[in-house]
Amino acid sequence: MSTGSFYARHLAVVGLGLMGGSIAMALRERADTITGVDVRSEACQFALDNKIVDSVTEDLYSGVKDADVVILCAPVRTIQQLLQKRIGSYLRSNTLLMDIGSTKQSICEAMGQLPIGINAVGGHPMTGKEINGISASDPNLYRNRPFVLCRTRRTTPAALVRALSLVQALGAIAIEMDAERHDRVVAAISHLPYILSAALVATVANEGKNDDAVWKLAAGGFRDTSRLAASDISMMSDILSTNTKSVATLLAMFRVQMALLETMLISGDEQQLTDSLKQIREARIEWAGRYEQKRNPQ
Amino acid sequence: MSTGSFYARHLAVVGLGLMGGSIAMALRERADTITGVDVRSEACQFALDNKIVDSVTEDLYSGVKDADVVILCAPVRTIQQLLQKRIGSYLRSNTLLMDIGSTKQSICEAMGQLPIGINAVGGHPMTGKEINGISASDPNLYRNRPFVLCRTRRTTPAALVRALSLVQALGAIAIEMDAERHDRVVAAISHLPYILSAALVATVANEGKNDDAVWKLAAGGFRDTSRLAASDISMMSDILSTNTKSVATLLAMFRVQMALLETMLISGDEQQLTDSLKQIREARIEWAGRYEQKRNPQ
Repeated sequence: MSTGSFYARHLAVVGLGLMGGSIAMALRERADTITGVDVRSEACQFALDNKIVDSVTEDLYSGVKDADVVILCAPVRTIQQLLQKRIGSYLRSNTLLMDIGSTKQSICEAMGQLPIGINAVGGHPMTGKEINGISASDPNLYRNRPFVLCRTRRTTPAALVRALSLVQALGAIAIEMDAERHDRVVAAISHLPYILSAALVATVANEGKNDDAVWKLAAGGFRDTSRLAASDISMMSDILSTNTKSVATLLAMFRVQMALLETMLISGDEQQLTDSLKQIREARIEWAGRYEQKRNPQ
Repeated sequence: MSTGSFYARHLAVVGLGLMGGSIAMALRERADTITGVDVRSEACQFALDNKIVDSVTEDLYSGVKDADVVILCAPVRTIQQLLQKRIGSYLRSNTLLMDIGSTKQSICEAMGQLPIGINAVGGHPMTGKEINGISASDPNLYRNRPFVLCRTRRTTPAALVRALSLVQALGAIAIEMDAERHDRVVAAISHLPYILSAALVATVANEGKNDDAVWKLAAGGFRDTSRLAASDISMMSDILSTNTKSVATLLAMFRVQMALLETMLISGDEQQLTDSLKQIREARIEWAGRYEQKRNPQ
């Protein structure tokens, strides 16, 4: 589909963290004016000082009332609250409303309840950094990364085209899917890994109570596998509580896979264990090759 | 304990891979002569061409018979076979025999069966690289990394002092502990993470059969958590089969931690879930701070 070039007369970015700041920077040349909305005055000041936005406000209404494009860049629950309580009555008709929340079903449902005339499209960019906050903003944060778009009951064909052109302007790769499918997919590749990582750290911490050597000897393998356990808690808590069914399903599926490997291990069936680990290794190496190529295309 | 400076008249490195090559490079100035032993002629040729060793041989007997220090740098099972079948009768009396195998109980037991007069100390350096093979060798591979030493029935006090001075010469941090304790510790911080990583990839691969989007959307979190699943299989298979009891114990303990988090998630006890994840996060961040400081001391 040809999406044309993205342009906003007045872009409002609600939530000036890493994601919102990076969107503003990436769309700097595509919007006549950009307003940042955040209750944290330091974030507002930073955005102004660094010319990431043209104006800032702590007041949602004054921030979004004149906008033709509004992007909600906050944790899932905050986005839900914005959608349920206030923003519907603040927006002009025909405004494109998007979000970047990490789970999509509850947000897209709430978007579907907005007044007719608001064009709402759910979004989830698969990107991030270890450091959060607007000071880590980077106009290339979205470049070559998947950006999921989910239609809602308030997604007109024209709104979808405009959302696609926005994603393109960020340099990201748009992938359209329904919200339920999205939530199942990210449960597998993102929320399950987080819980495994947290349960691993809890296990090692328990061992550490009996023998401090676990902490002394832990090295690169533990570092990589445990990294997600250091994720922002309020964000993860929102994610898990809005995607409980899929996460619980994936945990059950994980237990099956773990039990299969464990059975081969304990029974001493080395040949089968080696064969299984080999297949798993090949799947991981194949994925990693494709992933690195997509991230850094020639 | 003052260990003095390490010196070898004739150092034999058995196994010319990443670990063996890096030891030879790091001890280059501490040995009058270094012999590399490997049945893979390309590895031997590379070691010679790059002056990592002074001589090479495919024959174990001629490689070790004149050595006063011998280090076995191979996967666990290969080390066991070397110890059980041949090397005891090849070595001169008073030779220091060490190894770098990833599990220590079976190796240290086999070392304890060697002829009296051979001084054997088990070793496990907590280091590595994503790339294996002698061409990735690096004299700084061991620098500032823990190097576990395990006494055996063939460890004399003088042998332990000499082993400590060797570890010091590598720039590593010696940590002495018994083999059983070592194997339990590494089950927690290394073997458990590997199995989790493999079971995660198996779970995602299964999901991928139904929905290819899991592979398309998988990003940095999955990459980190799944990295260990790409580990060398023959090495991991040796490790798991020589440490089954501890690995099975840690898997059972992991299941408990995972079940605790899962219970809070499914029951919707958000406050408890958030509190638990917060404690886990703090433990991980605290460890990571200490780890990075040890790796890169000021």
